[in-house]
Amino acid sequence: MKMTAVAVNDFIDSTIPMYKLSGYRVETVIEGEIRVRLPYSADSLRAGGSISGPTMMTLADTAMYALILASLGPIGLAVTQNLNINFLRKPRNADLIATARFLRLGKRSAVIDVLIHAGDDPDPVAQATGTYAIPAA
Amino acid sequence: MKMTAVAVNDFIDSTIPMYKLSGYRVETVIEGEIRVRLPYSADSLRAGGSISGPTMMTLADTAMYALILASLGPIGLAVTQNLNINFLRKPRNADLIATARFLRLGKRSAVIDVLIHAGDDPDPVAQATGTYAIPAA
Amino acid sequence: MKMTAVAVNDFIDSTIPMYKLSGYRVETVIEGEIRVRLPYSADSLRAGGSISGPTMMTLADTAMYALILASLGPIGLAVTQNLNINFLRKPRNADLIATARFLRLGKRSAVIDVLIHAGDDPDPVAQATGTYAIPAA
Amino acid sequence: MKMTAVAVNDFIDSTIPMYKLSGYRVETVIEGEIRVRLPYSADSLRAGGSISGPTMMTLADTAMYALILASLGPIGLAVTQNLNINFLRKPRNADLIATARFLRLGKRSAVIDVLIHAGDDPDPVAQATGTYAIPAA
Repeated sequence: MKMTAVAVNDFIDSTIPMYKLSGYRVETVIEGEIRVRLPYSADSLRAGGSISGPTMMTLADTAMYALILASLGPIGLAVTQNLNINFLRKPRNADLIATARFLRLGKRSAVIDVLIHAGDDPDPVAQATGTYAIPAA
Repeated sequence: MKMTAVAVNDFIDSTIPMYKLSGYRVETVIEGEIRVRLPYSADSLRAGGSISGPTMMTLADTAMYALILASLGPIGLAVTQNLNINFLRKPRNADLIATARFLRLGKRSAVIDVLIHAGDDPDPVAQATGTYAIPAA
Repeated sequence: MKMTAVAVNDFIDSTIPMYKLSGYRVETVIEGEIRVRLPYSADSLRAGGSISGPTMMTLADTAMYALILASLGPIGLAVTQNLNINFLRKPRNADLIATARFLRLGKRSAVIDVLIHAGDDPDPVAQATGTYAIPAA
Repeated sequence: MKMTAVAVNDFIDSTIPMYKLSGYRVETVIEGEIRVRLPYSADSLRAGGSISGPTMMTLADTAMYALILASLGPIGLAVTQNLNINFLRKPRNADLIATARFLRLGKRSAVIDVLIHAGDDPDPVAQATGTYAIPAA
């Protein structure tokens, strides 16, 4: 991996204002895998008072982007082509933790799998896959 | 359809704070179809300065939810089960307009197709499908 | 479009044995859209006696491939990267007709939408989107 | 789990003629996970001579169905609602092995993840997720 958790955070903080505002934080980077935490916020609630689908979709996309940065370095902008998300369980109102890992990392494209957990609950609340176009170096 | 564009707006405004803040607006409701506008905002930009994927995902989910409300009335909370989105073209920095229509509306579930356009550009910038569980009346 | 319905049929017949065996037939090609028919066959039934999901998935993929051929000519092999399908209604036991159209046709990739109908029933039985990598000319 | 690998095979063999013909074989059933093998066959080739996308989609759907049977027993017919598949690498011409596991198993619906490998290659050739409606007991 070409960037540490701290370096990925700093890079995204400096390029996407909403990232810092929302409190996203890359916690760990290991070979082919990253973990990103979104602190609980009442702003993320949908009608009915549970964490909204878009909050989880945005976290999934953010974790995928962070994984590509950590692997390739800040060399350009990967572009999301497709994202598919399954909502599995109503999350309790807690921090969300996304774990993203490569299903494929090629020269021109990547496919990434993400599981999202709420707090330390063992069962995932959402699962997503995404495909990314990687710009030429 | 059981609710007008104005009624759907008022209902979501009163139940989801972020909806009003972001400026979403249901523009038209016809049989089986709804159109929702998201005004352009610099807050929606990703690294590189174009409108972010999560902004389009959130708009797609919002339009699907608004379509279900317009069709069924404010009788309960539909729950997103799956959302698949294809990003087709880099949107120019303009209002986004989502057009959602039912592929299926059953008693317990709905499947909805959404096309998103940027301003009055003829080619869509994103296409999404979503499946929703409909709560018992 | 660079190939007629007859030319697309002949090309696929000569390159994929299962295509001819299954009876697929391109019926019409117009700008950016193709229609492919799969004759009803008892071989396509799932447990319970209705047409199987894989039969519809295969038809969707076949229609997408035929659309790319009709548009680009027999210049190389497009590769499916992602396919998402929603099963909407139990199809009655009749011919299936797939209508595929481009959501995007770029130089290196295409995104295609497909609707599948059973016989002349007005409501679709399945909807799919697929992304394809287009080989360099 | 309510059925063994042998029992799931026998049940599907007796209800879906194409299953037996194609040579599918459930190899192992453990808690929440199943492994299904599809022997290599020249019938599964696409234009260009590699194993076709529909062959992998059908295997993914078959493995999901087998997992539901193994978990719930032969009590009724689960119905596929959505299937999303990412094709990761061109598979070499070998047996395909699908490993399916539950992301969620509820009373009325299930979400299942599938990885497909070609022979004993360590990198997966495809990944799929599917949602299923479970009939009332």
